[in-house]
Amino acid sequence: MSDITFRSDMTVHFLDFMGSDDSVIRAAKVSTMTDTTVDEMSDAGKEKFIDFLVANRHGSPFEHVYLTFRIEAPIFVWREFMRHRMASYNEESGRYTELKPVFYVPDPDRNLVQVGKPGEYLFTQGDHSQVRAVKFTVQDASVDAYEQYQYLLDSGIAREVARMVLPLNIYSTAYVTMNLRSLTNFLSLRRNVEGQTYPSFPQREIEMVAEQMEKHADSVAPMTLDAFRRNGRVGL
Amino acid sequence: MSDITFRSDMTVHFLDFMGSDDSVIRAAKVSTMTDTTVDEMSDAGKEKFIDFLVANRHGSPFEHVYLTFRIEAPIFVWREFMRHRMASYNEESGRYTELKPVFYVPDPDRNLVQVGKPGEYLFTQGDHSQVRAVKFTVQDASVDAYEQYQYLLDSGIAREVARMVLPLNIYSTAYVTMNLRSLTNFLSLRRNVEGQTYPSFPQREIEMVAEQMEKHADSVAPMTLDAFRRNGRVGL
Amino acid sequence: MSDITFRSDMTVHFLDFMGSDDSVIRAAKVSTMTDTTVDEMSDAGKEKFIDFLVANRHGSPFEHVYLTFRIEAPIFVWREFMRHRMASYNEESGRYTELKPVFYVPDPDRNLVQVGKPGEYLFTQGDHSQVRAVKFTVQDASVDAYEQYQYLLDSGIAREVARMVLPLNIYSTAYVTMNLRSLTNFLSLRRNVEGQTYPSFPQREIEMVAEQMEKHADSVAPMTLDAFRRNGRVGL
Amino acid sequence: MSDITFRSDMTVHFLDFMGSDDSVIRAAKVSTMTDTTVDEMSDAGKEKFIDFLVANRHGSPFEHVYLTFRIEAPIFVWREFMRHRMASYNEESGRYTELKPVFYVPDPDRNLVQVGKPGEYLFTQGDHSQVRAVKFTVQDASVDAYEQYQYLLDSGIAREVARMVLPLNIYSTAYVTMNLRSLTNFLSLRRNVEGQTYPSFPQREIEMVAEQMEKHADSVAPMTLDAFRRNGRVGL
Repeated sequence: MSDITFRSDMTVHFLDFMGSDDSVIRAAKVSTMTDTTVDEMSDAGKEKFIDFLVANRHGSPFEHVYLTFRIEAPIFVWREFMRHRMASYNEESGRYTELKPVFYVPDPDRNLVQVGKPGEYLFTQGDHSQVRAVKFTVQDASVDAYEQYQYLLDSGIAREVARMVLPLNIYSTAYVTMNLRSLTNFLSLRRNVEGQTYPSFPQREIEMVAEQMEKHADSVAPMTLDAFRRNGRVGL
Repeated sequence: MSDITFRSDMTVHFLDFMGSDDSVIRAAKVSTMTDTTVDEMSDAGKEKFIDFLVANRHGSPFEHVYLTFRIEAPIFVWREFMRHRMASYNEESGRYTELKPVFYVPDPDRNLVQVGKPGEYLFTQGDHSQVRAVKFTVQDASVDAYEQYQYLLDSGIAREVARMVLPLNIYSTAYVTMNLRSLTNFLSLRRNVEGQTYPSFPQREIEMVAEQMEKHADSVAPMTLDAFRRNGRVGL
Repeated sequence: MSDITFRSDMTVHFLDFMGSDDSVIRAAKVSTMTDTTVDEMSDAGKEKFIDFLVANRHGSPFEHVYLTFRIEAPIFVWREFMRHRMASYNEESGRYTELKPVFYVPDPDRNLVQVGKPGEYLFTQGDHSQVRAVKFTVQDASVDAYEQYQYLLDSGIAREVARMVLPLNIYSTAYVTMNLRSLTNFLSLRRNVEGQTYPSFPQREIEMVAEQMEKHADSVAPMTLDAFRRNGRVGL
Repeated sequence: MSDITFRSDMTVHFLDFMGSDDSVIRAAKVSTMTDTTVDEMSDAGKEKFIDFLVANRHGSPFEHVYLTFRIEAPIFVWREFMRHRMASYNEESGRYTELKPVFYVPDPDRNLVQVGKPGEYLFTQGDHSQVRAVKFTVQDASVDAYEQYQYLLDSGIAREVARMVLPLNIYSTAYVTMNLRSLTNFLSLRRNVEGQTYPSFPQREIEMVAEQMEKHADSVAPMTLDAFRRNGRVGL
């Protein structure tokens, strides 16, 4: 089974977007129909205005900015991701296509041991034997499962039946479109940043996706993301 | 009250968009991860593929295309419009700003007399005296109400209190962002087109908005709109 | 026009509900599949658990509790209400039925004068002449508009056209169904309570509706509402 | 590993509900505010009225009826289920709890061989050796994976890491709350019934869940479900 690929990273391709910090301001300013247009505002004025919106959780103007990503992540990450209902998804189908042998295996640096209580787990590094146990067991389990999958396909079994032996660490690809309001909510829950108003304890792997999404959002609406960070990373 | 404006039209400014027919195809094709990319498809192939998606109501790929409008319409239109929850809105506020004296008055061509039963009303033209009754009564009512509004404001009454005397035909402006799937649903319900699978009986004024939105959508995703029309105008 | 009714109150009939604090706990506990069932928990234990969910904004378990109301409120209140998209609405239609002459007029106690800046308006009482100006102007405007409405109907004009002369203070009735999570968000934005984490500045009339809804919610899920109040009235 | 359980069925516990056919009618009738109340209608009259709503896709009145289920199904079913965003979910967590060794294995009657083209697959029975291949391979794969999971847990590895070796046929339990409108959409897509207006090709296992949900919905709102079936099973 020489062609199995093991990866420890997440891919977030930033495909498309609509809007900017200016779009947020324009949409917000329709409520007052003021003569000052966004084009006449200084950067400092814009920053202050966006900060006001974020600090007071006036979320609706952030719904006019959209981002589309093409993301590759293991299925256990997608399972968490798709609980976010304010987003649009199209995912690779194990019914229509043969899934490729690409599996996630944790990087040696990934904390492996859980301490603390439910809802607030913290994780610490594993010792050498734990790191080895994870690496080799996850790899073996992936190889075994993929062989069983191939055996079923070779026996003429439908893909939708055969796939049920595949493990949660197999990668899947999906398109995700989300607006900036929904994205701040995602980032609020799926990153764990010192000092955030409402602490979150996301699984490391979805946090790896969230980190990349936040960078891309920064390139679209930097003032909004800065204000989000300055104001305790509370979802809008 | 010389500065009152009477209008019989709706304004739909098309401000921004993301995506295209190709985005729809790309998102749909992730499910099969086929090697054929959208770039290799002929126009005929694209049309056929989009028609397949529409005919079978595979709606999710159409959620990656977004459009933003700035719309001016009377409040009775907005009341119907905002029942569409799969959209984002920011509207001029009668609490934060003094509403301008711009009022809708039906065009002489607007059908004024209702026939048929609830849920399936049809409308026929009014006679000369009915056309006059509507024109002058609506104008008078608007002038009267706006004077009462101004009187309250001049008396130092808060805008949010004073505005309650204003009639439903006063114009309001809002930003609206909607995806292509939601838009087909809107068009399905807010236009009445011969031959559509599920007949709709929208009020003429929201239909005037919908007609303009459909034209703009045509400029973004012509194959999708064509397929929507060919397949009975059923919301995706 | 002797049969015109002027009202200064809002009607919130509580019609139906599903679930309770226990339903919230049961749904939340499925995540840990613990052997401790909700039936074995003490009231103090339940309160503590719900407080934990609210304080940490674990909102999803609150989505299994639903409430249905039949609400009578002026149209300017409905315009704000229906911006809440996580709810279900069916409203009286001015296209299908002749609207009844029931109009809102502010109670003499209603604060009429606005101070402060946009987004943070405060209101103070009007003086005697302002109270009179509001009362008589709103009443006159309502009578005038309703006469114009009747004149158009009497002339054979369709209801959907005639209604456009009616003012925003006419009452309308709607069914509203909302879950407890969405309701906390509504209450967070539509009441102004000393000490809430994110201050809101709702218009008084929608606050009158929100106050009644909160009381009804209290009767369904008292521990949840208490926790909501204890934790700064932040939407879940 | 004597305590592994293999199942070929889905569990749908019907836990709670709100509303009925009468609630649908009441909500719909608010639009006309007619004097005829639902209590005065005959059963035939009610049926006809609900049929009218369904045939014309007036979906909003069906949003006031809610159902809550506790469902046990394999993860590959949940992956499809949770694409339905108009619903509320709370699911067992592989981060907070050790997953139990309960695995799905297809019943010998389950069609195993796929024919036809993508989007319209049909399935036919497997031959004897295919039935055996599926049964033993799925069982073996489940046992192997669960042993690897246990080995990782025994090595002190966090549950959220260890679970990634588990296959998609492991069962998971969740609470699901959905309204009747959303449910008809679910049933439209997740059952394949002769004669439905828009053919669907759901995977058999989610269809097994849908069949049970439809029966429970029948007990809550039989007229609605009958009308849904009579009118081509189109989502409202």
